Amino acid sequence: NTKKVTKLGLEVPKVSENLGEWYSQVLVKGEMIEYYDVSGCYVLRPWAYRIWELIQEWFDARIKRNPLNVRNCYFPMFVSQSALEREKEHIADFAPEVAWVTKSGETDLAEPIAIRPTSETGMYPAFSKWIQSYRDLPLKLNQWNSVVRWEFKHPQPFLRTREFLWQEGHNAYATREEAERDVLITLEKEKFAGGEFTTTCEAYVASSGRAIQGATSHYLGTNFAHMFDVHFEHPDTHEKTFVHQISFGMTTRTIGVMVMVHGDDRGLVLPPRIASIQVIIVPCGVGASTANEVKENLTKTCLDVCNRLKGNSLIDNNDENENSVAQHHKSSTIIRADTDLRDNYSPGWKFNHWELKGVPLRLEIGPKDLDRNQMVAVRRDNGEKLTISLEGCSKDDDGNDKMVVRITELLNQIQQDMYAKAEKELEENVVICRKWSECAAHLAAKRLLLIPFCGRPNCEDNIKRDTTLDDGTAEVGASTMGAKSLCVPFEQPKGDEQLKSNDQCIHPECGLTAGSFTLFGRSY
Amino acid sequence: NTKKVTKLGLEVPKVSENLGEWYSQVLVKGEMIEYYDVSGCYVLRPWAYRIWELIQEWFDARIKRNPLNVRNCYFPMFVSQSALEREKEHIADFAPEVAWVTKSGETDLAEPIAIRPTSETGMYPAFSKWIQSYRDLPLKLNQWNSVVRWEFKHPQPFLRTREFLWQEGHNAYATREEAERDVLITLEKEKFAGGEFTTTCEAYVASSGRAIQGATSHYLGTNFAHMFDVHFEHPDTHEKTFVHQISFGMTTRTIGVMVMVHGDDRGLVLPPRIASIQVIIVPCGVGASTANEVKENLTKTCLDVCNRLKGNSLIDNNDENENSVAQHHKSSTIIRADTDLRDNYSPGWKFNHWELKGVPLRLEIGPKDLDRNQMVAVRRDNGEKLTISLEGCSKDDDGNDKMVVRITELLNQIQQDMYAKAEKELEENVVICRKWSECAAHLAAKRLLLIPFCGRPNCEDNIKRDTTLDDGTAEVGASTMGAKSLCVPFEQPKGDEQLKSNDQCIHPECGLTAGSFTLFGRSY
Ligand SMILES: [Zn+2]
Ligand SMILES: [Zn+2]
Repeated sequence: NTKKVTKLGLEVPKVSENLGEWYSQVLVKGEMIEYYDVSGCYVLRPWAYRIWELIQEWFDARIKRNPLNVRNCYFPMFVSQSALEREKEHIADFAPEVAWVTKSGETDLAEPIAIRPTSETGMYPAFSKWIQSYRDLPLKLNQWNSVVRWEFKHPQPFLRTREFLWQEGHNAYATREEAERDVLITLEKEKFAGGEFTTTCEAYVASSGRAIQGATSHYLGTNFAHMFDVHFEHPDTHEKTFVHQISFGMTTRTIGVMVMVHGDDRGLVLPPRIASIQVIIVPCGVGASTANEVKENLTKTCLDVCNRLKGNSLIDNNDENENSVAQHHKSSTIIRADTDLRDNYSPGWKFNHWELKGVPLRLEIGPKDLDRNQMVAVRRDNGEKLTISLEGCSKDDDGNDKMVVRITELLNQIQQDMYAKAEKELEENVVICRKWSECAAHLAAKRLLLIPFCGRPNCEDNIKRDTTLDDGTAEVGASTMGAKSLCVPFEQPKGDEQLKSNDQCIHPECGLTAGSFTLFGRSY
Repeated sequence: NTKKVTKLGLEVPKVSENLGEWYSQVLVKGEMIEYYDVSGCYVLRPWAYRIWELIQEWFDARIKRNPLNVRNCYFPMFVSQSALEREKEHIADFAPEVAWVTKSGETDLAEPIAIRPTSETGMYPAFSKWIQSYRDLPLKLNQWNSVVRWEFKHPQPFLRTREFLWQEGHNAYATREEAERDVLITLEKEKFAGGEFTTTCEAYVASSGRAIQGATSHYLGTNFAHMFDVHFEHPDTHEKTFVHQISFGMTTRTIGVMVMVHGDDRGLVLPPRIASIQVIIVPCGVGASTANEVKENLTKTCLDVCNRLKGNSLIDNNDENENSVAQHHKSSTIIRADTDLRDNYSPGWKFNHWELKGVPLRLEIGPKDLDRNQMVAVRRDNGEKLTISLEGCSKDDDGNDKMVVRITELLNQIQQDMYAKAEKELEENVVICRKWSECAAHLAAKRLLLIPFCGRPNCEDNIKRDTTLDDGTAEVGASTMGAKSLCVPFEQPKGDEQLKSNDQCIHPECGLTAGSFTLFGRSY
């Protein structure tokens, strides 16, 4: 089995010099993705796609209910040339990356048709049609779909791909106030959705010292409304009034960030809330001399524990009920558990396998554990081992299976600890820096910088240029790239560190007053 | 308000002469779709997309669990030219309809890239990689995605579109027996999924007398396995063994069929199980002279009934609980109910509006109803009116709200009645026909034919040709088109009607023995 273990495991540790190779191996060997014969496109295998489904379920339920009340819809993946080019400024960002369909079979199309790089230009002509009165507002629509941006930069699974999955929310309001309120609610939501890996929408990858955008929520003002003529008659003034719009989006990129943030030398480390399998149960300590009866008892116990965790005894699978027009939910706790009872692999091989795949908790049960009516739980995040009583199926005061309650608590603890660890890493690596001369050293130490900044694009370009290292190679790599602005944090430094009205922008050639502390860093 | 009603309602009844116009109006005025500026593409508005979500939820849960155990994944929308053309025979069907991306921005791609018309050619190279041992089998993967077939025939929303949403299941097995078993299980599932409108995968639209494919489940044999080299080492013989494959698919076309089958002169009629709103509550009988107190009481009662139906009092919205790693379900009955409390529309206008949109049940509550502690329920499918007691919030023996139980039963009854009506329509219009001379008359009467048939494609072509009516116009329309074979029903005619071994194929020029009764009809 040694051979298998070697082949199975990662060949490189998670250190910055070979982070790219580590990332690629952990995704392929962890069965998250498969490479594909169209460059920049990857197959999302069930292990990764299930994560996306769990994120979707969570996010979708929250945007659909109060106070957001967003509804889902589907717009075509195709956008006509005239619609796409209607908003020149908007499309300028995407133009070089738009994929164009020009042929069907052997036949040239009369005019090329774009694949959506994002759906503003496809959706807002319909908004213009649907919105006539203030009573048609707010209009809040979301889509779960894929978009295409034919980038030519070096692709990386999840992080930079030519097609990616996302949701795009597009809301229109009668007033700016309502629009701004929802921008913040959505952002808040997205903080949580992406909350596995960061407290802001900009995620931080400690191993590389680079930041990456997780989710966004924009207030668009009335720009698009003017361009696509989305207006209503004001109920009081009867004047033509343009709507205020917001958009928000979260992509499969968040999965890549999660892998980067939490993974380790042994493979993936999945937060329990998004793990396809949260608990894997492995029978141990069986040898050639083990009695059949013991083996059978072990198998039975593993399956029994699994069923208890999955809440199977509590789930009502009555088909007549399920086919009813009304949805019935029975009270139950459901943990995503599975057993690995394969007899052609050793327990050691299985441990490596499920560690590589990042399952948050492993339960080991051997003949001796059976005697003591217990099992051993091993945490993936920190390797900690705990003994857990099987306790028959004894119930606590609320009638819950005590073992299931214990495992649920443990999974919640793992979730919290992983979050806290990532948060600490972020806090330790965001530094307030007021001296231009110190910026380079902080970047080299893989930190993000909070610097006094004027806010001008030109000045940002200068900062980026002057923090780029020239190591003699032509290419700008991860460890040589300059810093760009990531965001202006809601929470600005306070007390002694607070920005004063005469504080200047950090760049020596700038000389303007700094508007705020802005987060700068190397970025994906 | 008269004007609004006229504009709101359908301008044509649902009769075969203008079925196309009726269909288009019911979809646009019912807010199911919006037309789009790329031909053959349509916007699925929330009212339609929610139907798809409900179908997805139902279907997805069933294919994921025992005995199918399918897992979801995502393959890129793009397929390389070489992969697409690897399976010549397969792709021949799609070749003229494949959309090709040839440019990104202004740059020509090195080679054109196809948008998937279906994913066999994208997926099976990965199957070849993933399947090495019999232990890797069965492999059961499903995708929810959209596919593109650039047809040039007259497009119709849902029924014939250039992009459509579907699921495509692709399973590989070690043996033919396992594969065949799952073909039947899946078909069975799909029968139910499409069960709103038909008992077979071929749906029948009585108004047009035409059939349309709802869902399919194929046994593919080892054809694709040979083409894409998907094989494993047989555990006993150690020989290279090709896998047996199946595929199954269900598309948004089912929504169009549902509209065609159940809709009526007043608009959509949605089966409760897939209706975005199952119950709409409308306050009535309020005039200028109505006391404010009565109005307020009415509003309060409407909202209270709505909340009781939605099971809000029972749902645990504790956020800490929701953010737990384990999923908790509280026992509850959830009916998708809403109120229409808008004060700028009359009750009559609202009745028309929600009837047009096909809401299965309307609850009317007026001041007199309040006095009697009751409301009036109006069924959308047959117009029947019933008086329902509000009963405070009194519980039955199982502790359920009696009013909610009553409404649930009513919705289940509507579901069953709609199904039974469609089933009856189908049964009445499928006729066993043994005489060639009688076929044309049956088709003209909008029936489907069960005819003795040899099974040869050439003979099918002859049957189609010789049942096509020449009405002097160049174009073959709905009422003149010939019959094609739809399926060989599992249940063949029995008793006196049973096929005998020497029965001949129905076509006069054929002369061969009939293999089975085959269903023929005009088709979409
Ligand atoms: Zn500056
Ligand atoms: Zn024949």
